[in-house]
Amino acid sequence: MAQKPSIPKGTRDFAPEQMVRRNHIFDTIRAVFEAHGYQPIETPAMENLATLLGKYGDEGDRLLFKVLNSGEFTAKLSPELLQPGMATRAALAISEKGLRYDLTVPFARFVVQKQNELQFPFKRYQIQPVWRADRPQKGRYREFYQCDIDVIGSASMLNELELVLVVDEVFKRLGIKTLLKINNRKVLCGIAEHIGHPDRLIDITVAIDKLEKVGQEAVCNELLSKGIDQQSVDRLMPIISLRGTPAQMLDTLRPMLAASEVGARGVAELDELMGLVDKMQPLQTAVELDLSLARGLNYYTGAIFEVKAVEAQIGSICGGGRYDDLTGIFGLRGMSGVGISFGADRIYDVMQQLNLFPPMLRAASQLMFANFGTAESLYSLGVMRQLRRSGISAELYPDAVKMRRQLDYANARQIPFVAMAGESEMQANRLTIKNMASGEQQTIPCSIDPIVEFMNK
Amino acid sequence: MAQKPSIPKGTRDFAPEQMVRRNHIFDTIRAVFEAHGYQPIETPAMENLATLLGKYGDEGDRLLFKVLNSGEFTAKLSPELLQPGMATRAALAISEKGLRYDLTVPFARFVVQKQNELQFPFKRYQIQPVWRADRPQKGRYREFYQCDIDVIGSASMLNELELVLVVDEVFKRLGIKTLLKINNRKVLCGIAEHIGHPDRLIDITVAIDKLEKVGQEAVCNELLSKGIDQQSVDRLMPIISLRGTPAQMLDTLRPMLAASEVGARGVAELDELMGLVDKMQPLQTAVELDLSLARGLNYYTGAIFEVKAVEAQIGSICGGGRYDDLTGIFGLRGMSGVGISFGADRIYDVMQQLNLFPPMLRAASQLMFANFGTAESLYSLGVMRQLRRSGISAELYPDAVKMRRQLDYANARQIPFVAMAGESEMQANRLTIKNMASGEQQTIPCSIDPIVEFMNK
Repeated sequence: MAQKPSIPKGTRDFAPEQMVRRNHIFDTIRAVFEAHGYQPIETPAMENLATLLGKYGDEGDRLLFKVLNSGEFTAKLSPELLQPGMATRAALAISEKGLRYDLTVPFARFVVQKQNELQFPFKRYQIQPVWRADRPQKGRYREFYQCDIDVIGSASMLNELELVLVVDEVFKRLGIKTLLKINNRKVLCGIAEHIGHPDRLIDITVAIDKLEKVGQEAVCNELLSKGIDQQSVDRLMPIISLRGTPAQMLDTLRPMLAASEVGARGVAELDELMGLVDKMQPLQTAVELDLSLARGLNYYTGAIFEVKAVEAQIGSICGGGRYDDLTGIFGLRGMSGVGISFGADRIYDVMQQLNLFPPMLRAASQLMFANFGTAESLYSLGVMRQLRRSGISAELYPDAVKMRRQLDYANARQIPFVAMAGESEMQANRLTIKNMASGEQQTIPCSIDPIVEFMNK
Repeated sequence: MAQKPSIPKGTRDFAPEQMVRRNHIFDTIRAVFEAHGYQPIETPAMENLATLLGKYGDEGDRLLFKVLNSGEFTAKLSPELLQPGMATRAALAISEKGLRYDLTVPFARFVVQKQNELQFPFKRYQIQPVWRADRPQKGRYREFYQCDIDVIGSASMLNELELVLVVDEVFKRLGIKTLLKINNRKVLCGIAEHIGHPDRLIDITVAIDKLEKVGQEAVCNELLSKGIDQQSVDRLMPIISLRGTPAQMLDTLRPMLAASEVGARGVAELDELMGLVDKMQPLQTAVELDLSLARGLNYYTGAIFEVKAVEAQIGSICGGGRYDDLTGIFGLRGMSGVGISFGADRIYDVMQQLNLFPPMLRAASQLMFANFGTAESLYSLGVMRQLRRSGISAELYPDAVKMRRQLDYANARQIPFVAMAGESEMQANRLTIKNMASGEQQTIPCSIDPIVEFMNK
């Protein structure tokens, strides 16, 4: 029956050393979210497939993990569905639930379901794992955490400003130098109109989104291959490659997009947001207008954001934007929202790479009591109970093995202090406490104050 | 495209009011676990079905949520598998992953995989959801959280004692009056030998586990229906119905089980544990020896535990025990462990029912700044940034709507303080702050100290 155990590819176990580091990230992000008035919600891991399908494009539908129905599911498989090439339809015949793919669509579903109980504008945060049947590769997992905030029910640009402030504060507290890129989907619409292809916005955004990764030539080729003519491509490339201060770039853009109603609105929105951001300087994050920033998801309709770690070669660690009609797909119209998602796993990789984790993050107890036998252990347990109630984590080595082995264990676990109470200490109502780093040890009364004093000195 | 959204039956959304209460439970449990030196780990939501199958009995196998393989899965469905009644085998042909059913089996798998990196005894805690395709009913969900601690690699009874101390401290901090029932699987083995049915331990434990729920007569009938003879049942019932102090009960039991080697060891173990527990009195939880306590899971081999809330009519809120060979199924033998699992969802139900949540648990900001327009908002945002860094959560109402509507929003959200900085306040570098409960308001300098002073008075 013994089998060599393993876990599904693209998933991970987290050992204690990794957990404390991950929790440092989650706790920091959560604290900033709460400081800004975002309220926590959670949604189920499984959603009805009807909720998820069609929200992430064809590729997204394919990447959903589908949960098999219980019972006599095979009865649903008609001979037609068993033909080669019918797997996608067959899957839907025998599964009605899927694992959540992101936190945004479940949030929209939540808002629509609870619309009569919520106060709008509703500011929520949500920190939960998501699952994608993507091909696993370095830095890309099939199970990973998203940390999302969204405000829904307010069109004010102050919400976008607040997201900038949250981004700034999170990465300041984590010690990561960042670059926040901002663009606006209306501007991209305006550019598509300007180059004569208002109906090709998706092809254009999909292509230019890759500019930084693949370079100008590859983007041009992709656009041409999609049937965008050479002249239009020639008009497009200088625009998305514009550089300069936001004010300079908007000054260049404004006359170009003046003839496009949506484009002109986009420029005005960017102008307003950049003005607000300016008023909040100094920020730690650099803020940049990047007209090639497109963000893949089609539900964005206004400002879009993406954050990169300046000192690490890794994709974006945070991204989001404004969507005017996310809840419309579930029947609730007229609810504008804006949100941003922090990618905890990539943030972890950046902090690991740049050695940014505080050195004192530790999963172990602060103090281990050595074990000299049952009577001595019971003696130790009395003071341990008081220590624990004072917030000092303490553990008793459970077996009365050789002291050497117990001390080796404390060292390997990086437990900083070891207390020893053998028979003689017990009779004198004392204990010996040892600083494992310095080797200093002292015999002191067996009560909480002298122990704390030794540990703090 | 609009559809009325819903979530899968047996799953739940958690709104902010519920989240803060749930987090109060999780934070309390986590703090106690950490104070006792347990270290956090996490495992993936999906495990290979090979890891999960056969660990929870036939019923458990049926209750696993199975995740459909991607790709051309239908090719795996031979005509034979499509026959009625073959659904279970068909499911295994087209799915190789399942959602975790508990935290114990993934923990055993984790320990075996990482055995060369871990320090033993290894004390871990794990707080994650699990999924079971059970029929949903009141208090039983298809997605729920478990909060587990286990020590593996030590046979010392001090570990069992520590679990008792953890149980006591958790429920003391949560304010729940509890009864902790203890028994020992070796004693149950001894009883099975004593009544002449050493080979029927599982049938016997399954039946007597229901004693409290269904009564003596129904247990007798179940035993008889399983082919246990009347005489044996007559010998069994008085034993499992024994009451008295642990010492009295063990005195009655000792001679009965003297002829059973395993039974005598069980009595000695219970004796040792009860003696240790006695030394740690006073405890808040009542501790009782209950010879009818059996715990369903077959991997327990020593002490078993179950905790009930004294003042609520609800099943057990916590349970666990000693297992001598949990990791053996994955090829690592000789690792004795002991653990306990807290059921956060039932604890929530108990606290809700008994009104035990602290009244100040709140998801909202402590302070809302009203919105008088962009310039005033930017003025407010300056002091808000300082407040947030001092740990005071603050939010700006995002739209410059009528003051009445903004105050109604703050009231509905139960935000205790509202700050107002209109044009005149701004010019005087002041703001007006209002206590929403008392109605008191005051105009004070727009800086952090006077604001904090007003909020604290």
